[in-house]
Amino acid sequence: MFINKLIEGIKEKKSPIVVGLDPRIELIPGIVTNKYYERYGKSFRAAAEAILEFNMEIIDKVYDIIPGVKPQIAFYEKYGIEGLKAYNETCKYASKKGLLIVGDIKRGDIGSTSKAYSDAHLGRTEVEGEYLRAFYSDSITVNPYLGDDCLKEFVEDIEKYERGMFVLVKTSNPSSSQLQDLVVNGKKIYEIVGEMVSGWSRKHLGEYNYSSIGAVVGATYPEEAKNLRALMKESYFLVPGYGAQGGTAEDVIHSFNEDGLGAIVNSSRGILYAYKNQGKFPEENYGDASREAAIKMRDDINNTLEKYGKKYW
Amino acid sequence: MFINKLIEGIKEKKSPIVVGLDPRIELIPGIVTNKYYERYGKSFRAAAEAILEFNMEIIDKVYDIIPGVKPQIAFYEKYGIEGLKAYNETCKYASKKGLLIVGDIKRGDIGSTSKAYSDAHLGRTEVEGEYLRAFYSDSITVNPYLGDDCLKEFVEDIEKYERGMFVLVKTSNPSSSQLQDLVVNGKKIYEIVGEMVSGWSRKHLGEYNYSSIGAVVGATYPEEAKNLRALMKESYFLVPGYGAQGGTAEDVIHSFNEDGLGAIVNSSRGILYAYKNQGKFPEENYGDASREAAIKMRDDINNTLEKYGKKYW
Repeated sequence: MFINKLIEGIKEKKSPIVVGLDPRIELIPGIVTNKYYERYGKSFRAAAEAILEFNMEIIDKVYDIIPGVKPQIAFYEKYGIEGLKAYNETCKYASKKGLLIVGDIKRGDIGSTSKAYSDAHLGRTEVEGEYLRAFYSDSITVNPYLGDDCLKEFVEDIEKYERGMFVLVKTSNPSSSQLQDLVVNGKKIYEIVGEMVSGWSRKHLGEYNYSSIGAVVGATYPEEAKNLRALMKESYFLVPGYGAQGGTAEDVIHSFNEDGLGAIVNSSRGILYAYKNQGKFPEENYGDASREAAIKMRDDINNTLEKYGKKYW
Repeated sequence: MFINKLIEGIKEKKSPIVVGLDPRIELIPGIVTNKYYERYGKSFRAAAEAILEFNMEIIDKVYDIIPGVKPQIAFYEKYGIEGLKAYNETCKYASKKGLLIVGDIKRGDIGSTSKAYSDAHLGRTEVEGEYLRAFYSDSITVNPYLGDDCLKEFVEDIEKYERGMFVLVKTSNPSSSQLQDLVVNGKKIYEIVGEMVSGWSRKHLGEYNYSSIGAVVGATYPEEAKNLRALMKESYFLVPGYGAQGGTAEDVIHSFNEDGLGAIVNSSRGILYAYKNQGKFPEENYGDASREAAIKMRDDINNTLEKYGKKYW
């Protein structure tokens, strides 16, 4: 089961964090990009090759201290077909290194279309009796605006292939309040979505009483996270917004249950491009800078968990 | 401007419909698929080549009677990289035939990530000073769950590159009521989203007093469409759900304004695989069956518009 593997990874590595692999070509060191521009011109091919090399170095430097990575597919899609090849190769490489993949794809559509997305990212696609994998994620993020008949299409593959999903409940962006905080009979929309997700979670519990069906809850909204934590005990939270978006360890603490489990915190920019913020590491050691930043984040969260009596290790 | 081009296409071809290019390999005639299975085995390559041939034949047979096509990207994504190549080639081929492309991608994320999706599908992606196109759509569908700071990222490219977007307001699926019909201070969520989209629409009006920022409003909810039509006069509606999903011409009529404009109705399965429903056409003439089905749909809607005094031609 996905959730068992995730929790075992967190406990083994003492690390409730994932690194968001969101490539921004303009922030990748010239030492990586320039040789591909020389070889392939200023092209998607060059960008994609540079992204893959960069991602592999980051993975090499952090795979032993984190349970998973969260590639954001938009940052690959923008480089077209070549970019999506780099997405796929990144996922495969990270898997080989023992990391779980959270494909941050935020898909969601009517039933039969959601099934196609599920085939693409969680399950397999049938071609004349052959069942083939299109993309290589262990779990994905899903948008709830279309309701249950969208979500249910993913659940079959979650069971069949031991995958997971994190449904958007309260997102980390400034205007997330616009719809998500509207009040219906005394309940906010994000709470209603939280209860809906929680219903799915409870039907699919793993060994540690957590579910492979979880929620996205932004680090930038600690009070909302507290509400949701109380509402949906069995749902694991994927928590974006730590670091560059402004969320702190004190902010994310509410996303954890008393057992110290229940949340996995993501940081992307703050870890990937750490070499830029420090005089300490020369450009060619960008991977070391990322490793240091990941360790710092892990320790920051672990120390805060300990402070609040939520030690899980 | 996208919306001007769309309206001119509708008027010129007397056809307020788009054909949804949602390839289902199991429904594509064996006369198309088998040769690719022989050549490339039971593989994504074979499926993608078959899909592209099928799409091109459909486009050849309908391009003179419709203003645009709506490829649903999920049905390409499920065939991985090869599938997405077929998506891109389909879009390029349809463009060459003078059709507008509605990329049914239902993306939406936090600001910087939505910008990446916009680069990918509406605008261009910068690689070291070069601005390159990743995917070839004239407009896309967008999910509103993250609010305005998601939507605004697409607007810049809509202006700059003469593109459009249709924001999900009331979707055609059975469980769309679950979130979209919840009531906040006497207003349903889909109405609140409708007003939000309408605000964007009004800021970006074209020649015919319609906007390149429109809404997705399912054919399966005619009463809701009537509400929304009154609320958001300037927003063009993309109306899925006609045909296979159960929507009729009488159902979609409420999505049109009194000027006979304001909506573009999609049908996918009912047109693409029309050859299966008729004894009339042999398999090799599947394109002719699709043409007949598209004409029938166009006439059905035009006749109904005339009946309700909403003639636009």
